[in-house]
Amino acid sequence: MKKLVLMALSICLVSGACAQTPKTIKLDAPNKQRGEVTMQAFEKRRSTREYADRKLLPQDLSDLLWATNGMNRPAESKHTSPTARNKQEIDIYACFEDGAYYYDAKSHELQMVTEADVRTHIAAVQPFAATAPVCLVIVADMDKVGDNSELSREWAAVDAGIVSQSISLFCAGCGFGTVPRGYMNKEDLHKALGLRENQVIYLNHPVGYFK
Amino acid sequence: MKKLVLMALSICLVSGACAQTPKTIKLDAPNKQRGEVTMQAFEKRRSTREYADRKLLPQDLSDLLWATNGMNRPAESKHTSPTARNKQEIDIYACFEDGAYYYDAKSHELQMVTEADVRTHIAAVQPFAATAPVCLVIVADMDKVGDNSELSREWAAVDAGIVSQSISLFCAGCGFGTVPRGYMNKEDLHKALGLRENQVIYLNHPVGYFK
Repeated sequence: MKKLVLMALSICLVSGACAQTPKTIKLDAPNKQRGEVTMQAFEKRRSTREYADRKLLPQDLSDLLWATNGMNRPAESKHTSPTARNKQEIDIYACFEDGAYYYDAKSHELQMVTEADVRTHIAAVQPFAATAPVCLVIVADMDKVGDNSELSREWAAVDAGIVSQSISLFCAGCGFGTVPRGYMNKEDLHKALGLRENQVIYLNHPVGYFK
Repeated sequence: MKKLVLMALSICLVSGACAQTPKTIKLDAPNKQRGEVTMQAFEKRRSTREYADRKLLPQDLSDLLWATNGMNRPAESKHTSPTARNKQEIDIYACFEDGAYYYDAKSHELQMVTEADVRTHIAAVQPFAATAPVCLVIVADMDKVGDNSELSREWAAVDAGIVSQSISLFCAGCGFGTVPRGYMNKEDLHKALGLRENQVIYLNHPVGYFK
């Protein structure tokens, strides 16, 4: 029964058919047998700035988030994307038309942080970015690093880049369009996502089906 | 005939059978049909610190470098790993027992910068890193960015991270061990590779076969 409710909520989110958006979305198990051979992911890696006007299917959303920063060794709490000194300071926020969510890698679920459509802050003066059904925002939580020194910030930037390429190569290998973007209205986005002072926004990735 | 000589040189390098190491190594064409399905690359991504005592085969070396930062759209001079504002400031150095080489993505060849084994500078106090047959060093050329501001350095760190995850996911998907490392003797390595002042070393990746 619980699974059915979660499935219904999940369908709600991606179809937009519900009056209320769910506070928590339990994602499907990732499909780990998916995608082209590894070298084809590299062959097809490119930046895409036009997306079909369709929301992501639940399985696609699950696979995208898991590849981005999911746990591939849950017993050790270790992720698909490594971090310097294993500080695991990188958090992912998934932003849709009807709300933005924190991705909890441990439970593989999305937890709502706002019902607002924050994609406009992400797009800023590049409207194409808000046409993607989901924008992933890459945030470093410097509290998890333990300090905010110049070196730690450099590492956080490296770690943000690592996650960015996970998104790009997942998309290339599994048939989605994306582009890594540094440009956005960081101040408004920081506020809209309810981030703490020590959470630093680095990048965003609109993701969608090809047009 | 030219191809035969290049092949011989290439075999020399990986077998260590020649008295003189080649100044230029023309790499084989990358095998773009190689590797497990994309999601398996994410499933298998992890850090490996033990490597078999075997040099990389020419095809493996070619595929590794192409996936790392090769050109997947040569007509547009565009790479497998993107860079912020397409500055293409990231350079890769491949360091072997018998010399270190700059990877020229356009010609897909290695150009010697020193005959020295610089892997000891890369390993520093972590000797395991010098046991890998090749260490890739990720360098940002700030002259290509056009300035050395704090923001540009942040972008360069992000771009270094992007390339790092290309290496990690290629290795995971194609059966090699690697680990991203920030630790190394940067000053000695900078000197040994003959880098200019505005070339900044960010990361290194020992790469080898599993033990």
